[in-house]
Amino acid sequence: MLVVAGTHGNERNGVWLLERWRRNPGLLNSAGIDLVMTLGNPAAVAANRRYLERDLNRSFQPALLNDPGNQELEVRRARELLAAYGPAGSQPCQVVFDLHSTTAAMGNSLVVYGRRPADLALAAGLQERLGLPVYLHEKDPHQSGYLVEHWPCGLVIEVGPVPQGVVQARICRQTQLALETALVLLAEARRGVLRLPRQLVVHRHLHSLDVPRNANGEPCAFLDPRRQDRDWQPLRAGEPLFLSDQGQPISWEPQAEDPPTVWPVFINEAAYEEKGIVLSLSQREVWPGEATWAEALRESLRIK
Amino acid sequence: MLVVAGTHGNERNGVWLLERWRRNPGLLNSAGIDLVMTLGNPAAVAANRRYLERDLNRSFQPALLNDPGNQELEVRRARELLAAYGPAGSQPCQVVFDLHSTTAAMGNSLVVYGRRPADLALAAGLQERLGLPVYLHEKDPHQSGYLVEHWPCGLVIEVGPVPQGVVQARICRQTQLALETALVLLAEARRGVLRLPRQLVVHRHLHSLDVPRNANGEPCAFLDPRRQDRDWQPLRAGEPLFLSDQGQPISWEPQAEDPPTVWPVFINEAAYEEKGIVLSLSQREVWPGEATWAEALRESLRIK
Repeated sequence: MLVVAGTHGNERNGVWLLERWRRNPGLLNSAGIDLVMTLGNPAAVAANRRYLERDLNRSFQPALLNDPGNQELEVRRARELLAAYGPAGSQPCQVVFDLHSTTAAMGNSLVVYGRRPADLALAAGLQERLGLPVYLHEKDPHQSGYLVEHWPCGLVIEVGPVPQGVVQARICRQTQLALETALVLLAEARRGVLRLPRQLVVHRHLHSLDVPRNANGEPCAFLDPRRQDRDWQPLRAGEPLFLSDQGQPISWEPQAEDPPTVWPVFINEAAYEEKGIVLSLSQREVWPGEATWAEALRESLRIK
Repeated sequence: MLVVAGTHGNERNGVWLLERWRRNPGLLNSAGIDLVMTLGNPAAVAANRRYLERDLNRSFQPALLNDPGNQELEVRRARELLAAYGPAGSQPCQVVFDLHSTTAAMGNSLVVYGRRPADLALAAGLQERLGLPVYLHEKDPHQSGYLVEHWPCGLVIEVGPVPQGVVQARICRQTQLALETALVLLAEARRGVLRLPRQLVVHRHLHSLDVPRNANGEPCAFLDPRRQDRDWQPLRAGEPLFLSDQGQPISWEPQAEDPPTVWPVFINEAAYEEKGIVLSLSQREVWPGEATWAEALRESLRIK
């Protein structure tokens, strides 16, 4: 199994943990699972920046990976990670955990990309044991090319709020707890004794919002202070979301396909400002657990 | 009077305010004081980074400013700011407020450099009216070359906690409140009606601490979670300060000249990691107010 930290170079908590576990493997309870650990973007970690040329966690797009003319640092690093640790790499890994942190008050949470049964097995098990909320990201043409999608099974562990560039004990503990619990689940799946809960609550990605802008494209409102740090909490049509420069509340009104209630996530994540995103909207859904999930997880652990 | 924001390009709240006040001066109550507003480091603001070549707020050192061989971006910008808005500049300003934010839980606070009577008048007035704590920075050979020292009177307004790169309504409101109250004080000083309190509580800088490191220079402990967000609160000899990689608490023990109780500030400020600083220690002192302070402030407002 592969553990990646520092996919974004200024998310320091995973990097801090990884360096300690490498120096002293006894600090991580691996439940008997063989682990390979690597920094996602060592150059960005050294510079304490999210990335140098392109966001590594948007660089795993076939169009980039297969373009020999593209020699951007992060695209080269993506190819390198796949050649080393990908399912067909020199040290093949079947499962990957990618350790992230966020300035948003996401708590200890999981991000799942798409609906692969093995991912859902891990998410359901982690949600049952630790209560973690799950953000299901799929079908966003503006956001693609994520690292974990290139392994047969993989999740992002996303913990916040913590500023970029800062290590905090609480964030490190939450990250370690989620990873160790995931390893217990993998060990159980390998032994064929994993039992999953009857349901999985997911927050399914709808789309993202930018702050309101004036005719010149300049922001002319910010997040209403009543919404700061309220990730995973419902937002209903007509409730205040922004505050204009003149101090007028601006309420949220559903767009064409939006349901009347949504659940904002990644509220005021610093790194998304450059992407024109102040928060993402999700829909809360309760899915019945499927018997096939645990089997798919067990299958993905089989040495090919 | 000069208002500077974006001296550090990733401290976005002051930048956000400045852009709004420039577009719509009615959004700031200036108490009749003439204001000039400028971005400290526009190139760093555009890049959303603290600085590009050198920390601008450490670049106002005579040895750098007077070295024609030094053409670093921030040194050039420091010369430019002085030539434009310095007390002998083309649009001379007598007083400067430099708007900063921090990832540390400093609240709404002031940083004063040295013991200039006009600065102490403003700090005492702001403390009386808003309760702001005051960090007195002086005599640290490792940290010098601050912007405000080059004007006859000037303070840093320092507000946190807020991640780098994030705008939050609360931080903007606190910053604006401190600035508007300072402008009221200046207006009163100019009219000769400023009354200052009998005392000023300062937290006088002693020295800074790094995290504990192993023989290879790698960090081997982090801040004890019980100390996170406890800026301005006393730390006594023997109380836990760090937590080792193995989970052992490491307590604070006074060094040679330290008093038995200190007051940590700038705890886990992201930008100071590269400076090898995890927090600074200060000593709380109660100074009697001096009649000369208000007079010095009035004097500094006189057009030369």
